[in-house]
Amino acid sequence: MNVYQEKAAQAVDLLAEFDLDLWITFVRETAEHTDPVLKLLGPFSVTWPTAFLFARNGEKIAISGKGDDEAIRHEEIFDEVIPYTQSIKDVLLPHIQRLDPQRIGVNFSRSDVSADGLTYGMFLNLQSYLEGTAYAQRLVSAEDFIEALRGRKTPQELALMRAASEMAMEIFDELSAWLQPGVSEKEIHAWVHEKVAARGAETSWDPGHCPGLNAGPNSPWGHVGASDERLQPGNTLNMDFGVKINGFCSDNQRVWYVLKPGEAEAPEEVKTIFNAVRDGIQAAADFVRPGVVGWEVDAVARKFITDAGYEEYPHALGHSVGRYAHDGGTGFYPRWERYGTKPYGTIHAGNVFTLEFGVQSPFGYISLEEEILVTEDGYEWISPPQKELMYIRSDA
Amino acid sequence: MNVYQEKAAQAVDLLAEFDLDLWITFVRETAEHTDPVLKLLGPFSVTWPTAFLFARNGEKIAISGKGDDEAIRHEEIFDEVIPYTQSIKDVLLPHIQRLDPQRIGVNFSRSDVSADGLTYGMFLNLQSYLEGTAYAQRLVSAEDFIEALRGRKTPQELALMRAASEMAMEIFDELSAWLQPGVSEKEIHAWVHEKVAARGAETSWDPGHCPGLNAGPNSPWGHVGASDERLQPGNTLNMDFGVKINGFCSDNQRVWYVLKPGEAEAPEEVKTIFNAVRDGIQAAADFVRPGVVGWEVDAVARKFITDAGYEEYPHALGHSVGRYAHDGGTGFYPRWERYGTKPYGTIHAGNVFTLEFGVQSPFGYISLEEEILVTEDGYEWISPPQKELMYIRSDA
Repeated sequence: MNVYQEKAAQAVDLLAEFDLDLWITFVRETAEHTDPVLKLLGPFSVTWPTAFLFARNGEKIAISGKGDDEAIRHEEIFDEVIPYTQSIKDVLLPHIQRLDPQRIGVNFSRSDVSADGLTYGMFLNLQSYLEGTAYAQRLVSAEDFIEALRGRKTPQELALMRAASEMAMEIFDELSAWLQPGVSEKEIHAWVHEKVAARGAETSWDPGHCPGLNAGPNSPWGHVGASDERLQPGNTLNMDFGVKINGFCSDNQRVWYVLKPGEAEAPEEVKTIFNAVRDGIQAAADFVRPGVVGWEVDAVARKFITDAGYEEYPHALGHSVGRYAHDGGTGFYPRWERYGTKPYGTIHAGNVFTLEFGVQSPFGYISLEEEILVTEDGYEWISPPQKELMYIRSDA
Repeated sequence: MNVYQEKAAQAVDLLAEFDLDLWITFVRETAEHTDPVLKLLGPFSVTWPTAFLFARNGEKIAISGKGDDEAIRHEEIFDEVIPYTQSIKDVLLPHIQRLDPQRIGVNFSRSDVSADGLTYGMFLNLQSYLEGTAYAQRLVSAEDFIEALRGRKTPQELALMRAASEMAMEIFDELSAWLQPGVSEKEIHAWVHEKVAARGAETSWDPGHCPGLNAGPNSPWGHVGASDERLQPGNTLNMDFGVKINGFCSDNQRVWYVLKPGEAEAPEEVKTIFNAVRDGIQAAADFVRPGVVGWEVDAVARKFITDAGYEEYPHALGHSVGRYAHDGGTGFYPRWERYGTKPYGTIHAGNVFTLEFGVQSPFGYISLEEEILVTEDGYEWISPPQKELMYIRSDA
């Protein structure tokens, strides 16, 4: 059973929990406009209108245009791949009638982009096929189901996520050995891209902004590209980075201090901030277990860092990671209006989240980001977290 | 005026032709799920729900979440970029009321994926903002408008398309000089990718399938990757390839014959087929002018090649090219059910289409693909078409 076959079995298993009798992903010309759910279903793209059906009775059926069917069949994910030549309706409607579902989940969501892949034109097409049948009134949002399916990683997905994270950690380590005072953010960016390409991987998000780099206090903060700032003794370096390999992403931040000539370690203030960030992340991690609500985890770290006398971070503590670096669904979001319903999701075993925040300092941005897996009774780090500040020394 | 500013001016100009008073593109988290229209509007992505408004009175307004607004404003495409913090409705609804449109075009289409970027969840959100106002009943499909906007290239878009095509032609020429008997499709694929990367370009479609290669009669036809087949004397090589640079794609096919020792030119049968393909494309090009309907152009080439005694090609003669290699909208499609309404569109000046078809032969697949611009009184080639078979000789 490969990772897609495992996911397909999970999809069938989850239908009952969300009271869906049938789940339909309905797409076309996915090279031009895809549904974010498609990446969960298989490594194929389709040209003609295609329906992927998962039924509560265990049936997994793909209905696709002649020409698209072979690539789908090749993956052995679906029990049946049924090609059509004239109209998908001729095949789809009889199958829906045969399965006779009360609640048909389709991919739309007012609040979660990753569960909102059905376009309005395709919704109208689907509705027109069902016109005059009882099923026209039975289409419901599959958003909660999709969030669970995407969020609860299977064993093989976890293995792939660990492998991606491990590769990123290797690159962090190699980088650590290579870094020298005087190197610019742009040079680090290019070096990292070479290492990623040499491993046959991609960056977890768009290459212009991955890795995100902050060398010293003058580097612009936020999702901006690498600047011309250089590593200077007495400053910190922060790097936000992940690799995508075999379809799965990692996402971590690491932080270094550039020693001045004669210095053996960082100034007290740098260490104090680093420790506060590290311990805030640890406190939040210790709070994580199945059943807690997203915003509660954010609140632990937020209270920790403000109690320590620092400014609160202007973003969420963590997000889901998976086939996307930002994998949709719930996460450790504060209850701010702009996050909509995201802060209110319940955490489940099998979820993978980041824990990330930092503090702006006169030395630069000091920030960490770790990935955790939620387990039955708590959490596990995906990779060993950064527990000590790393140092950059001059070779001379 | 840059290419996006030029396109924005064109959008305003086109509203009257399609009887729209307002056009709204409504998107969110476009890094995860974009609207294909967004690429026409500007080189930005957005996180928060964002509305791009083009009004018949000439106003161009972007309403975006605080944090997304700066990148949009930076491009100087919109007269006004209005940030919101709480809800987009608070800003969007008053602007709709002020503009008081009778017909509001939004991005949905039952038949054209490139005009169907509005998700059903976002449609529901938009509709809920308008609830209780007259505007809730005034949302209409902008598909014809979008097809025209996408299809009618502006002067700067054409300059960028010509530059992409020219780069591809250079690579075809370099390849021609490098090709040798014994080289495999996979080696050609790698060589081409090196040349594309060295120019800072990308391939026009997914790199695994671009270039598409067919060396000899045993290479599998269709959208499959490069095989282990090698160039053999007495066979042909066909390559389907395009580069994407500065946001615009090219798409061409070229064909070679591998000379046997002692041969000065290809066998008569190869030349006869090549000439039939070349002349069929020329006949179709000669038929092209504004006002003809897509399928009529396809029919010219289809009749030409079947009259010449060859099998008809199992696909359309041509598609629109632009920011995507398959740029949506009408094209030279046969009136087959599976092409829906696409064959029935009227050709306009400023459109860019491919003309492409081939013949399977005992020597290999012999096929050409050229790009034409529709002009006021006919057509122009985007790059010089292939008029003679090219030859691959052994250096030895």
